[in-house]
Amino acid sequence: MKNKDGSSKIIHGALEGIRVLDLTIAYNGPFCTMNLADHGAEVIKIERPGTGDQTREWPPFKDGASGYYAFLNRNKKGMTLNLRTEEGKFIFKELVKTADVVVNNFKPGTMEKLGIGYDVLCTIHPEIIYASSSGFGSYGPLSNRPAYDNIAQALGGMMSITGFPDGPPVKIGPAVGDNFTGTYMALAIVMALYRREKTGIGQQLEVAMVDTVISILEGAVIQYTLKGEMNGRVGNIDPYTSPFDMYECKDGYIVIAAASQNLWEDLCRAMGKPELIDEPDLLTTKLRVENYFTKLKPIFVEWAAGYTLVELQGILKEAGIPHAPVLNIEQMVNHPNTSAREMVVDIEDPVLGTIRVPGVPIKMFGTPGSVNAPAPLLGQHNSAILESLGIEKEKIQEFKERGII
Amino acid sequence: MKNKDGSSKIIHGALEGIRVLDLTIAYNGPFCTMNLADHGAEVIKIERPGTGDQTREWPPFKDGASGYYAFLNRNKKGMTLNLRTEEGKFIFKELVKTADVVVNNFKPGTMEKLGIGYDVLCTIHPEIIYASSSGFGSYGPLSNRPAYDNIAQALGGMMSITGFPDGPPVKIGPAVGDNFTGTYMALAIVMALYRREKTGIGQQLEVAMVDTVISILEGAVIQYTLKGEMNGRVGNIDPYTSPFDMYECKDGYIVIAAASQNLWEDLCRAMGKPELIDEPDLLTTKLRVENYFTKLKPIFVEWAAGYTLVELQGILKEAGIPHAPVLNIEQMVNHPNTSAREMVVDIEDPVLGTIRVPGVPIKMFGTPGSVNAPAPLLGQHNSAILESLGIEKEKIQEFKERGII
Repeated sequence: MKNKDGSSKIIHGALEGIRVLDLTIAYNGPFCTMNLADHGAEVIKIERPGTGDQTREWPPFKDGASGYYAFLNRNKKGMTLNLRTEEGKFIFKELVKTADVVVNNFKPGTMEKLGIGYDVLCTIHPEIIYASSSGFGSYGPLSNRPAYDNIAQALGGMMSITGFPDGPPVKIGPAVGDNFTGTYMALAIVMALYRREKTGIGQQLEVAMVDTVISILEGAVIQYTLKGEMNGRVGNIDPYTSPFDMYECKDGYIVIAAASQNLWEDLCRAMGKPELIDEPDLLTTKLRVENYFTKLKPIFVEWAAGYTLVELQGILKEAGIPHAPVLNIEQMVNHPNTSAREMVVDIEDPVLGTIRVPGVPIKMFGTPGSVNAPAPLLGQHNSAILESLGIEKEKIQEFKERGII
Repeated sequence: MKNKDGSSKIIHGALEGIRVLDLTIAYNGPFCTMNLADHGAEVIKIERPGTGDQTREWPPFKDGASGYYAFLNRNKKGMTLNLRTEEGKFIFKELVKTADVVVNNFKPGTMEKLGIGYDVLCTIHPEIIYASSSGFGSYGPLSNRPAYDNIAQALGGMMSITGFPDGPPVKIGPAVGDNFTGTYMALAIVMALYRREKTGIGQQLEVAMVDTVISILEGAVIQYTLKGEMNGRVGNIDPYTSPFDMYECKDGYIVIAAASQNLWEDLCRAMGKPELIDEPDLLTTKLRVENYFTKLKPIFVEWAAGYTLVELQGILKEAGIPHAPVLNIEQMVNHPNTSAREMVVDIEDPVLGTIRVPGVPIKMFGTPGSVNAPAPLLGQHNSAILESLGIEKEKIQEFKERGII
């Protein structure tokens, strides 16, 4: 990644020098550690010998390798370790002594059953930061339940307020219950690292997917607790301002957000319908919200249908009205803004070849994050890491033969 | 918030000692600083004299005060400052000398026009961390465009993959483009704080809403870049495993995630339909995905329709199948898990009275976050903060009369 001034001098990421032992699997935990690795932390991904993280078997595939695994685990080192064996536990504990952070997203209780819970690890290394994510967390009435993203979206109230009023609840397409939880966990880990710099003290922390979903409902909770009113599904509008919706034009969909009186009046003029400004039913935001479906929406539906996306974007851009085409994934990937912001970048993967993956959304101008290494092959860094612990080559070979690594 | 061991001894948040000058408005910036304040940072929210943050006029209201403002700005201090005046700029710069972080979410260029861009502030206080969020960021072809959450969801590709295959694109109900951006910015700020502890050097950073949305599309980008295939809208299913969907029962909706062979077989038995296990069309995940809509979905639609939510939950819990009812906001707020996890908590607000707001999703057991102060009245802490800069009472009164504060 280039610096903002265009120079390419190497600046290490903000988390340079931090070592993370990463036991996470699937999506939310690996998304957390991807963020840490993108900003310079040394993330050692520890996988089950033989099969590894389940995402190695998640599509899309090329030459037998998973693109899903590849994008999510870039910038990480890889080792295998059978944590059900005594030697595996021993090696893990030796690694803990060298690490700053241990992360897992197993079902609560799993780490304790393996004998590597926080109670054990903090006696080995009191400054360790120990982070866990799960569906429901380590306490509470649902703690032991298994969870997937759709479970969290359903229980957290998100599905009930996504979709159209006359249709069923809708799940957010990508697993936002997962990746938001992973991001909260990354934030928690870095807060703990900051705190440890100040005090020398490590700690345990956790984030639960359902808690995450509840925390991102915007005004829906206070609407209910303050007024006893429940937000329902409102499709693509904003219930408090208008016009703010998606419309179908000749060759696609466009969203428009004329969320102030000035924008509304500019929009009327841009549409060639300045007479709407003085329409008694549409004079204020309040009136436009009240009369949206009966009066305003039909006008916009008809208006948008008469244009192509390019034509509409020209009119709205000229008038300074916030708007955007609804891009599909291909259009988004190939949009000039995406490349200018380095939001899809190349990695040279040893199996997949050159692949294009999502970039680094957090732009730190002093210590830029970057995507500079492919995801590890299963056990790729076993020898280097074990040798750094002083374990001899013969022993490493023996561990391999016995399925410990 | 109680400690995990049930004791109530006061432990300060992880960010105790950090002072944040918070110029943010609306949702994404204030969501960032709410996270920082929840974990002990001293956040000084600086608002326009007279009107303040626009969210003071966002519903729901009670006794003329906004519940939206109240939940989003809890734990923050409030002062007013007219940054278009020389005295206002002077006071701001004096405050910068005492601060660790400056945060804004104005349109790019606004801070520079006011004469308080990073280039100026870093000469006043070289260690300052200067964070900005906006729709498109400070560079790139769309940099100057205004944005709302729906603009980011549309351009980032999210809307194109949310909703049903036979329906239009759907916006995520709450503004996830906003709150995820705010969370990334909080993470960026804390990474910069950590780095500053190591090196003594501050920095500038930014997060753009469209970049955020692109980064949370899960496998959609790699599916296109690796295979040339585009994810479309898949409603409530997961396209790679089955059965994984939402079904309507007698009195509501339930999601089921039988995402492995074992879970599938357990589910067949729990349904009293063990014969499905040996059905040639449904033998493997691959076959169940292929034949979901023609063969499997009708079976589940009919099965679920015969039960109430309580009955279905009993059957699925007994069998260990991941499932959840689709809760509306009222049901979520009143669910025992929500209170056990302290995900809706009370604040005593001076105007609104006792209100219930979303709690702290990041559970740090060593330095717990907490909700312990209401949002500020407009300019509530003006005198205390200005006096701490050595400004005399008479002068403060004069600033007030002249609209500088």
